Amino acid sequence: MTDTRTITSLTNPTVKAARALHMRKEREETGLFLAEGLKIVTEAVELGQAPRILMYGRDAADHPVLQKAIAATHAAQGEVIEVSRDVLEKVAKRDNPQAVLGVFEQRFTPLNQLEPHAACSWVALEQVRDPGNLGTIVRTSDAAGCGGVILVGECCDPFSVEAARATMGSIFAVPIARATTAEFLAFRIAWPGCVAGTLLTATTDYKAAHYTRPTLVLMGNEQQGLSPELAATCDVTVKIPMRGRADSLNLAVATGIMIYAATA
Amino acid sequence: MTDTRTITSLTNPTVKAARALHMRKEREETGLFLAEGLKIVTEAVELGQAPRILMYGRDAADHPVLQKAIAATHAAQGEVIEVSRDVLEKVAKRDNPQAVLGVFEQRFTPLNQLEPHAACSWVALEQVRDPGNLGTIVRTSDAAGCGGVILVGECCDPFSVEAARATMGSIFAVPIARATTAEFLAFRIAWPGCVAGTLLTATTDYKAAHYTRPTLVLMGNEQQGLSPELAATCDVTVKIPMRGRADSLNLAVATGIMIYAATA
Repeated sequence: MTDTRTITSLTNPTVKAARALHMRKEREETGLFLAEGLKIVTEAVELGQAPRILMYGRDAADHPVLQKAIAATHAAQGEVIEVSRDVLEKVAKRDNPQAVLGVFEQRFTPLNQLEPHAACSWVALEQVRDPGNLGTIVRTSDAAGCGGVILVGECCDPFSVEAARATMGSIFAVPIARATTAEFLAFRIAWPGCVAGTLLTATTDYKAAHYTRPTLVLMGNEQQGLSPELAATCDVTVKIPMRGRADSLNLAVATGIMIYAATA
Repeated sequence: MTDTRTITSLTNPTVKAARALHMRKEREETGLFLAEGLKIVTEAVELGQAPRILMYGRDAADHPVLQKAIAATHAAQGEVIEVSRDVLEKVAKRDNPQAVLGVFEQRFTPLNQLEPHAACSWVALEQVRDPGNLGTIVRTSDAAGCGGVILVGECCDPFSVEAARATMGSIFAVPIARATTAEFLAFRIAWPGCVAGTLLTATTDYKAAHYTRPTLVLMGNEQQGLSPELAATCDVTVKIPMRGRADSLNLAVATGIMIYAATA
C-alpha cells in the first residue's frame, strides 16, 4: 500500500477538503459528504459505495474490517490516508471522534425513478428543518422497510454531518428524492395507494384510519406542520392524540409512530 | 421594579452561577437547572414553579407574558435581571439564544410516591445515555399522558441543558423518579398492570401484545438494550419489527412507538 500517507497537518489539501464538507455550500458544489465510523463506512462499501476519501487513525489501522474498506477504496480509485487523532477531531468537529471517516458521493434518486409498489410505505417530509430529525427519520424508514424518503420544498440537507450521523448508516440504504411542492403535487396524482398526513385539527385517530398500500406518510415541519396545500392533497388526515400538556411530539417521534402505524 | 438590574458582565455572580449549570457537578450541588425560552418559563410558572433566577434580553422586555413571569419570580423571592445579548449567548452556550432564560429547582418525585393507577401508561428507562433522547422521551410521555418517567441505574441527567431543551417544557409537567436496579425490581413487584419491554430477541410483535393497564413501558439503553436482569422482570417482551438494513431504531423513536402502542 505505497499510496497510504500519514497526515498530521490541517493544511493538507485532502484534510482541508474533508473539513470543508461541514459547509452546505461546499457539499453542494462538490456533491460530496462526510460520514463517520467504521461500521457506517463498511455498510457503505457493502452497499456498493466506496469512499472517495478514507481517513483513519492509528488505533483503527490493524482492524481487519478496515483493511476491507481500504481495499475497496483503492479499487474505486479513492484516496486512503492515515491521520493523527488531532486531524480526526478537527475533521469530525468533535471530541472523541470516530477512528474512521469517509468522504462519499451524495446520491439522490430522481422522483420519477421511485417505484411506489416496491414497498408498503414511503415517507415525504415538507420543509423539515432539523438535521437530527431528518437523519433519525431516514434511520426509521430503513428499519421499517420504507421505500424511500421524499424531501418536499426547502428542507435541511440530508447529507450534512449531523443528519448523516443520525441516520447511523441508513443514508446509504434509503433512497432520498427531492421535489418542489409543485413537483410533489404532480407526482402524487399517480400514487397508487393513500397519501396520509397528520394534522392537529384532524378528527380521525391515527390508529383508526385505514391506510391503503403503498402508503405515503406525509409530515409537515417542526414549527408549522403541513402547509394547507399539502394537507389538502392527503387522502387521509389523522391525529396522534395529545393527552397531556405538550401540544406536539418531536417530528422524528411522530413520523416513527406514523410509519409503523402505516406499515403494520 | 427597582430590583431589576441590567447586566452586561460575564463576571457577575448571578451570570456565573447560571453558566455553571452546564456542569453536572454544579447541578448536583445546587439542585438547580437552566431552562430556555419564554414559552417554557411561562409553562413552569403556570405549573407553580417560579424561577429562582429569571434573565431576559432587551428584545423581550416589553412582552406582556414576560411581565407575568417577572411578577411570579418576584413573588417567589427570585432574582430578575435584564442581560445583554452577549450574556444570553454565553449562558445558553449557543448562537441565537432564546431571549428568556430561567434557573429552576430540580424536582424528582420519590419512587414510592408514584401512583400507578393515576395514568394508563408509564415509562422506565435503563441507563439511558443521550440527553436529547431522554428529553424527547419526557416530551412524548407528556404528550401521551403518561404518569411519569422512572430512570433506572446510571442515566444521563434529565436536568442537563440539552435534555431540558429537548423536553420543550415537559420537564415541568412530567414526574421524574430515580431508582437503582434493586430499587426498581422491588418497586415493580407491586406494579398492578404489566411491565412491557422491547427486546430484539422477542418473538411477539409489539402490535400483537396485550398490555394490561397501567402499562409500564421499560426500555433499555442506546447501545445494549435491556440488561438480562430487567428483561427477566418484564411480564411482556415484544419486538418492533426491523425490515430493512438498520438493526435498531433511535431510542426516543422506539419509546414513542411503544408508549403510543400501550396507551392506545
